[in-house]
Amino acid sequence: MIPGMHYERDNIREMAGYAPGEQPSATEVIKLNTNENPWPPSPAAMAVLNDISPEALRRYPSPTAAAFLDEAARLHGVDKECLVATNGGDELLRLAMTTFVPPGEPIGIADPSYSLYPVLAAIHESPIKAVELLEDYDLPEDFAAQMNAAGVKLTLLVNPHAPSGRLFDVDRIDALAQALDGVLLVDEAYVDFAPASHNVIPLIARHDNLMILRTLSKGYSLAGLRLGYGIGSPDLIRPIAEKTRDSYSVDALADAIGAAALADQTTAKASWQAVREERARITEALTERGFAVAPSHSNFCLARMPAAARHSAQATYEKLKARNILVRYFPAQRLNDCLRISIGTPAQNDALLCALDEILA
Amino acid sequence: MIPGMHYERDNIREMAGYAPGEQPSATEVIKLNTNENPWPPSPAAMAVLNDISPEALRRYPSPTAAAFLDEAARLHGVDKECLVATNGGDELLRLAMTTFVPPGEPIGIADPSYSLYPVLAAIHESPIKAVELLEDYDLPEDFAAQMNAAGVKLTLLVNPHAPSGRLFDVDRIDALAQALDGVLLVDEAYVDFAPASHNVIPLIARHDNLMILRTLSKGYSLAGLRLGYGIGSPDLIRPIAEKTRDSYSVDALADAIGAAALADQTTAKASWQAVREERARITEALTERGFAVAPSHSNFCLARMPAAARHSAQATYEKLKARNILVRYFPAQRLNDCLRISIGTPAQNDALLCALDEILA
Repeated sequence: MIPGMHYERDNIREMAGYAPGEQPSATEVIKLNTNENPWPPSPAAMAVLNDISPEALRRYPSPTAAAFLDEAARLHGVDKECLVATNGGDELLRLAMTTFVPPGEPIGIADPSYSLYPVLAAIHESPIKAVELLEDYDLPEDFAAQMNAAGVKLTLLVNPHAPSGRLFDVDRIDALAQALDGVLLVDEAYVDFAPASHNVIPLIARHDNLMILRTLSKGYSLAGLRLGYGIGSPDLIRPIAEKTRDSYSVDALADAIGAAALADQTTAKASWQAVREERARITEALTERGFAVAPSHSNFCLARMPAAARHSAQATYEKLKARNILVRYFPAQRLNDCLRISIGTPAQNDALLCALDEILA
Repeated sequence: MIPGMHYERDNIREMAGYAPGEQPSATEVIKLNTNENPWPPSPAAMAVLNDISPEALRRYPSPTAAAFLDEAARLHGVDKECLVATNGGDELLRLAMTTFVPPGEPIGIADPSYSLYPVLAAIHESPIKAVELLEDYDLPEDFAAQMNAAGVKLTLLVNPHAPSGRLFDVDRIDALAQALDGVLLVDEAYVDFAPASHNVIPLIARHDNLMILRTLSKGYSLAGLRLGYGIGSPDLIRPIAEKTRDSYSVDALADAIGAAALADQTTAKASWQAVREERARITEALTERGFAVAPSHSNFCLARMPAAARHSAQATYEKLKARNILVRYFPAQRLNDCLRISIGTPAQNDALLCALDEILA
């Protein structure tokens, strides 16, 4: 090949890839950096795993992940035509761009937000229309108007918000879907940790531009399985389910295990409640130590370093890591004086607080 | 929404989706329609499945599928930098387009070929440059010249060819990679059933535009797991592995089970040999019955109906289906007088021959 020549597209060559949080293989690490649920998955789901037959692996899976969709339809009280299963929520994010956005047309996000969104847009060769959130991570009044003025075809909104944990209520989502000209994808990766009364799914009957993303990675303790799904009106779901989705993108194991996990609401709900209780305790404990903690409805909290702290957020992150405690540090504007801390078990959270006391003493 | 309005892109609205082969949930069906290996997966792989811990599902998987890549690097004698793991081979096909082809620029295929290729190109909004194969499914002499003249950035060639089973030898692939201006993706979904001496992997050291696709769906009896991988020069692999691939696209189960399956070459090779023997027997038996069977190096054979058969290929397919035997019928030019029959176990193949004798008597 001629030196300097390359086969990848120019936009791919120029962009930076997504930087995932560290995934250490060692199990003695206290891992509070990528928002896994600290509690184990459903025993019923593990029982299904142990019953998988060689025949289930030998054959192609259900093209639609039919067992899982049946269970999801039952759980949410929607028709199966309103659902599509994906290889993790991340596949649905990509598919929303592929399906609704001609390359080169803008994609809307709030800033700050999930750092994968701009990466997916760069791959798609679409500019990002980023609207800055207010000081308290609220949406500015003219959020939808700015998106519409920019000709945005798809707006991605993570709710509860990451990395702040702020929850936009049902009325806000309702008004936003109404106001936006394009598709609104509400990324509910963390919604299971919000109050049970928060439910935007009924809105899909009123807004044919509203797509809801769910995942089993957090709420169902199945990050290793890669299973997510989309909920929306049949007209919005159909082109993804029947056309743009990779064929057989959800494997036979995820189909069966995911169905069992959804069916076991008791285990899942107990973990959500335990996370909420520890979130309240950690928020209070960090506040007492001088951190400014954004009120979170998620399974993490964003903590701004105390004004007089003897170490920066980055140094604190590194000192925690040296003690085998991983949290997330973002070297980005507005976030580089913060730590994002996933809510762990009580013992893990105690270890974190103890380490912070030593580091910042 | 205004009647007639739609949110999906025009190209998505206008295209037809991929039509997968039937995947019946009933297990009494003799399923010779989607080219699964008729023999079960490795017992060692099943043992790994049964040892998966709840912790492995709770956490995010290795972002690179590191255990699997280690094993694949060992098996093929290549560096890990030459490998990328994907959610089935189908994900790699899509990623090759995303990575190497600006939307709107042409993608090259041989015709006939795997029917997913034009579907993926339609999603990518790229025209297809299709070059017709010769009567015996050989490539025309000017195949590469036609691709280059059309400005093709990516040529997809399934080898052994589907649906004929014809094998293009190492020298042909070598010459093709040399002659093509763009990337050559050799889709080796079925290569495990070709002679063991056929190995194009050493060519990646000579051609920085050569990408090889492998899958565990057929050779390792793991179609339900969704695991494939790409092999190529580090410069070709890197943008996929580090940029365009969905984050965590290979789950923790596929990483661990896939590694164990590759490591158990004994089980896999025994199944390949059994398929080759049955392929020879079926080819002979069908030929005796008046079918014209293309010489196959794959785990299926393409059989043209006898000239004087009392039923068409489509009617024969339907009559087989009524007897719970599924084969593949393609309502396409050149193929609509053929059946594509996956090689089953001896008992399944006997049942097929017996049913054909009754139907065509």
